[in-house]
Amino acid sequence: MKAVQYREIGKGPEVVEIDTPEPGPGQIRLKVTAAGLCHSDWFLMDLPEEQYTYGLPLTLGHEGAGVVDKLGDGVEGLKVGDPYAIYGPWGCGRCHACAQGAENYCPYAAELGITPPGLGAPGAMAEYVIVDDPRHLVPLGDLDPVETVSLTDAGLTPYHAIVSAREKLYPGGVAVVIGVGGLGHVGVQILRAISQVTVIAVDVSEEKLELATEVGAHHTVVSGPGAADSIRELTNGLGASAVFDFVGVQPTIDLAREVAAINSFIHIVGIGGGILPTGFFSTPMGAAVRAPYWGTRGELIEVLDLARTGSVGVHVERYDLDQAVEAYRKLHHGEVRGRAVVVP
Amino acid sequence: MKAVQYREIGKGPEVVEIDTPEPGPGQIRLKVTAAGLCHSDWFLMDLPEEQYTYGLPLTLGHEGAGVVDKLGDGVEGLKVGDPYAIYGPWGCGRCHACAQGAENYCPYAAELGITPPGLGAPGAMAEYVIVDDPRHLVPLGDLDPVETVSLTDAGLTPYHAIVSAREKLYPGGVAVVIGVGGLGHVGVQILRAISQVTVIAVDVSEEKLELATEVGAHHTVVSGPGAADSIRELTNGLGASAVFDFVGVQPTIDLAREVAAINSFIHIVGIGGGILPTGFFSTPMGAAVRAPYWGTRGELIEVLDLARTGSVGVHVERYDLDQAVEAYRKLHHGEVRGRAVVVP
Amino acid sequence: MKAVQYREIGKGPEVVEIDTPEPGPGQIRLKVTAAGLCHSDWFLMDLPEEQYTYGLPLTLGHEGAGVVDKLGDGVEGLKVGDPYAIYGPWGCGRCHACAQGAENYCPYAAELGITPPGLGAPGAMAEYVIVDDPRHLVPLGDLDPVETVSLTDAGLTPYHAIVSAREKLYPGGVAVVIGVGGLGHVGVQILRAISQVTVIAVDVSEEKLELATEVGAHHTVVSGPGAADSIRELTNGLGASAVFDFVGVQPTIDLAREVAAINSFIHIVGIGGGILPTGFFSTPMGAAVRAPYWGTRGELIEVLDLARTGSVGVHVERYDLDQAVEAYRKLHHGEVRGRAVVVP
Amino acid sequence: MKAVQYREIGKGPEVVEIDTPEPGPGQIRLKVTAAGLCHSDWFLMDLPEEQYTYGLPLTLGHEGAGVVDKLGDGVEGLKVGDPYAIYGPWGCGRCHACAQGAENYCPYAAELGITPPGLGAPGAMAEYVIVDDPRHLVPLGDLDPVETVSLTDAGLTPYHAIVSAREKLYPGGVAVVIGVGGLGHVGVQILRAISQVTVIAVDVSEEKLELATEVGAHHTVVSGPGAADSIRELTNGLGASAVFDFVGVQPTIDLAREVAAINSFIHIVGIGGGILPTGFFSTPMGAAVRAPYWGTRGELIEVLDLARTGSVGVHVERYDLDQAVEAYRKLHHGEVRGRAVVVP
Repeated sequence: MKAVQYREIGKGPEVVEIDTPEPGPGQIRLKVTAAGLCHSDWFLMDLPEEQYTYGLPLTLGHEGAGVVDKLGDGVEGLKVGDPYAIYGPWGCGRCHACAQGAENYCPYAAELGITPPGLGAPGAMAEYVIVDDPRHLVPLGDLDPVETVSLTDAGLTPYHAIVSAREKLYPGGVAVVIGVGGLGHVGVQILRAISQVTVIAVDVSEEKLELATEVGAHHTVVSGPGAADSIRELTNGLGASAVFDFVGVQPTIDLAREVAAINSFIHIVGIGGGILPTGFFSTPMGAAVRAPYWGTRGELIEVLDLARTGSVGVHVERYDLDQAVEAYRKLHHGEVRGRAVVVP
Repeated sequence: MKAVQYREIGKGPEVVEIDTPEPGPGQIRLKVTAAGLCHSDWFLMDLPEEQYTYGLPLTLGHEGAGVVDKLGDGVEGLKVGDPYAIYGPWGCGRCHACAQGAENYCPYAAELGITPPGLGAPGAMAEYVIVDDPRHLVPLGDLDPVETVSLTDAGLTPYHAIVSAREKLYPGGVAVVIGVGGLGHVGVQILRAISQVTVIAVDVSEEKLELATEVGAHHTVVSGPGAADSIRELTNGLGASAVFDFVGVQPTIDLAREVAAINSFIHIVGIGGGILPTGFFSTPMGAAVRAPYWGTRGELIEVLDLARTGSVGVHVERYDLDQAVEAYRKLHHGEVRGRAVVVP
Repeated sequence: MKAVQYREIGKGPEVVEIDTPEPGPGQIRLKVTAAGLCHSDWFLMDLPEEQYTYGLPLTLGHEGAGVVDKLGDGVEGLKVGDPYAIYGPWGCGRCHACAQGAENYCPYAAELGITPPGLGAPGAMAEYVIVDDPRHLVPLGDLDPVETVSLTDAGLTPYHAIVSAREKLYPGGVAVVIGVGGLGHVGVQILRAISQVTVIAVDVSEEKLELATEVGAHHTVVSGPGAADSIRELTNGLGASAVFDFVGVQPTIDLAREVAAINSFIHIVGIGGGILPTGFFSTPMGAAVRAPYWGTRGELIEVLDLARTGSVGVHVERYDLDQAVEAYRKLHHGEVRGRAVVVP
Repeated sequence: MKAVQYREIGKGPEVVEIDTPEPGPGQIRLKVTAAGLCHSDWFLMDLPEEQYTYGLPLTLGHEGAGVVDKLGDGVEGLKVGDPYAIYGPWGCGRCHACAQGAENYCPYAAELGITPPGLGAPGAMAEYVIVDDPRHLVPLGDLDPVETVSLTDAGLTPYHAIVSAREKLYPGGVAVVIGVGGLGHVGVQILRAISQVTVIAVDVSEEKLELATEVGAHHTVVSGPGAADSIRELTNGLGASAVFDFVGVQPTIDLAREVAAINSFIHIVGIGGGILPTGFFSTPMGAAVRAPYWGTRGELIEVLDLARTGSVGVHVERYDLDQAVEAYRKLHHGEVRGRAVVVP
């Protein structure tokens, strides 16, 4: 089968022909219907050799959807042909975190060599993908896989950040969304869908701010020197009850800190390398600061149900497998609007 | 192998010789180290044929522990010889409830024919038992399986009821425990271990009330006409912030209703057939009434960790497999103190 | 001043001239800008003498709004002329419940003789009303008092019921709203505003069901023999994760029980006198049943903030004080659409 | 009356004679029965003039208890002679935070000039103290005021930090307490009282670690280079599910960061001036970092109820008012074991 692999440090993705994998006992083979590209794919392909820990060759694609193609021995309750999305942050499945579906925080996955598809295990950017356990499949039903596949990461990650801060999202509360890219523009939609907070979107790009308005932001603020003052003003001097930074570089994290209210929640979602100095004299009293990671199994089910209500959608550009290298190039150069999805 | 089975309606349990089962792909065979007897075993064996839905013959035992004996194809992360307790309320594993570990509330289990071991699937009262999925095993570590096995039901069930009502268990709150039997005496211990509420235990038996005091109840009240008044007095007229009825017959449920405070929680745990008429004119304002069932996967992990701290223990009477019929007879006649456990 | 009073058992409301009250130390006199009529006013006026406990004469009006007219000694932080809504369920202000703003569940109010305005204390259906403490005032700001005043009860009561069941309002969940009257049609709006559950509205009246659709219900079901089946079908056989019964008579409560899902929440809000028999064999496993009462101080602030977002509104019919008796008559005969509000 | 005041920048506390204050309308005068000394008194007395914002002269004492001596006009529900503890972090009483009892996070207090007694308003280190509102009084009942008064800060502050992190305090969880001084040694007791987590106490002083063991810590670790490794080892490499740093200097905060588990909670309680760099590459995935402040009204009620159960106690050294200066001197030099309390 065809697959998009990262095979050599520094060389970028390649489309190659590899053996079609067979599902072992308890596993499922999906025929892939959609696989999403993500900035974190480039994050790992940009790592120097001594920091790269994902194995080579690596079949890319941690956002995946497909139809059941073949069941390994002992798999029950699934039918060939049925469509599913893949829950990516695989854990051990049995510890205290995993027993609550928070496999994204499994403390044993690393030592057991369990890795997400596309981030260690062979990913979904291929004609077929192996899923290790039925519990990692969420039914798609009538949802279009191409429109939906990105929600497994670009939807689940903001959803997890947002619902973890739900107690700050009361009517009268204010949420600041920093960065209206792939995750941020979904974050705005989620906030509007499940709460009545005032949503203030921040970005450096006017175009992104237009998108923010389009998907429901109440106010937009151009990133820069006056942004904190503008937000303070919009919040009557109180600041935001919740801040979601989908960029995570130092200037956006500094902004997050400046505009957070007393007893608020600051979620640093973007992996931009910035840090937020937290303490009695540097952050508002009672403000919690946290860098969450991906999301739980239950939350992915909820995200897909949100998509079913029509309240959350992702702008998608389609590519076939042979165009994947070109799609990755565009992604690297910021030429993709929304998310790029490969359709084998 | 030897197994304790219910083979004929109305005939009670029998010790029989059956084939040792083989684990299919994804399954695990445990060599049983302990299996608990439970009143609900008699509940089903006392059902008339038209209401009995558990299949025949039925190997009993929904409280089970054992060591890994043989792994089915594809099972990873488990080692032969390692000791485990069995999580009993098996669900589909993939729905919204199961994805959060609440397999006890899986809405699909029934239609999929998924049943707990000993309550449909072959149970643990045998030399060997098949567990359908590694996620249903919780590591026992150094815990004694005989002392611990009952916690998989008689510990998990009250624990689930108690932690579901946790917001009512603030310092200054009062918990009433009705029925100090197998579940109730564990309930008292759990309440003392994880909160500082005042615990009032109620029972018809002075002996049981002595046990209640022994395991930590602050006050004991003999069930009967004056019980509600006594409890009202002990609570300065306010009633209890949480009531756990481990009996569930009409008189105990009536008592639960009479002693519950405004905005309290009433959990009917015992399957005694009583009902609590809930409404604006019959229950205190804001009091929630609920009949919970068993517990979640995460909660079982927590219950075993509670046992590790020494704060929860079960009084156990041991029997070997050949004595199981006699043990069931004693259980039926109320001659067992604490829980009876079969050790193959 | 003019006031609408209930002066004699069985005689209904009267417009009378009484002395304008003076605010004592710590109290506030509001010049009333709006006072809402409520079915519960008739509930108490229909009580026989031996059950009537609200005192005579009773100035009606437990839904009130006004502008600060005169401050009692020692009141700080309020300015004459500023507009406020009145939080009605007054408590002692100092106990564990009140310290969290849940004065609606204050266990001491009754014995201390503390009663809500219009339900014991002199109410807002007059030219002036005394509020006992600044904490019972919520700023109205730019909100229109006439459009808003009903939210202090007809908004706060469903809001409290709904947010108490928030954990059941995940995307993919289903809420059934029984009764689309004054409270129910606000309940539908609240559910749509703060969640993405599917909302199914039930009523006997086609006109009310049209209103339900107008304010956001996804599905409507005519109350009656086939209602439970229709709802089961709309929920793929699972039932509703949350049921709010704003009627509370026996047939609606029976329906609530029949359509509730495993581990759901049933809130009986309407004071119709029905009861829900709760127990292992009569309610779904884990379903919690509760008759809540009014709401908390924090929740009233949130409800008014919801109104500010435009996501919740009440249909209002205006009457002046002299028309109050006529308005009450219409209310009694079901001739009011939405809520009737007296504007002095 | 006699009072202990801070009258001149840099000069330390003085015992002076001032007028006995009269309670205004809505206020209460307490005859002080106990007033606690706190390190934060020295924090403000050590401030240079340009940073000092508490007013002069300042009557010290933000931990106070007394009996009702005189009621201002309009105060109801309190009796002369009844004993109360003072809730210190006064807020506006009416905003969203205050309406839930979280006056410690009132965003309006500062601009309204509302300050806690002893930290702006005249404090309790005097023969009499004025309390601005009955809601700031919590009944002491039979509790000894001298033994109890410190709990209004040294008990409430750790209690707030601990219950805010309650979801991380499941059985099997681990809490690290850094600093076993006035707050830390109460923190250890609270953790033991309301949970079954394993408690690991850290301090530089062997004597403090002995105290930790005495009040219930399971393990003690000497602060220093090997501390993180020791804690990692005690937690099987996973780290702690909750960390409470009651010191808050840079080395303790660094330790907190190093020993926190994935998805844990780090509470920086001590005002030591350190900061915790929070972000994807510097803190464990999902770990929340927060600097909480004091506690809520409901929590103070709970803390006093904890004291009633005997599960929380403070070691107290008594001084009379004339010895207050000497007591402050000892406190400054670390010569007080537990808390120093002035008894007028």
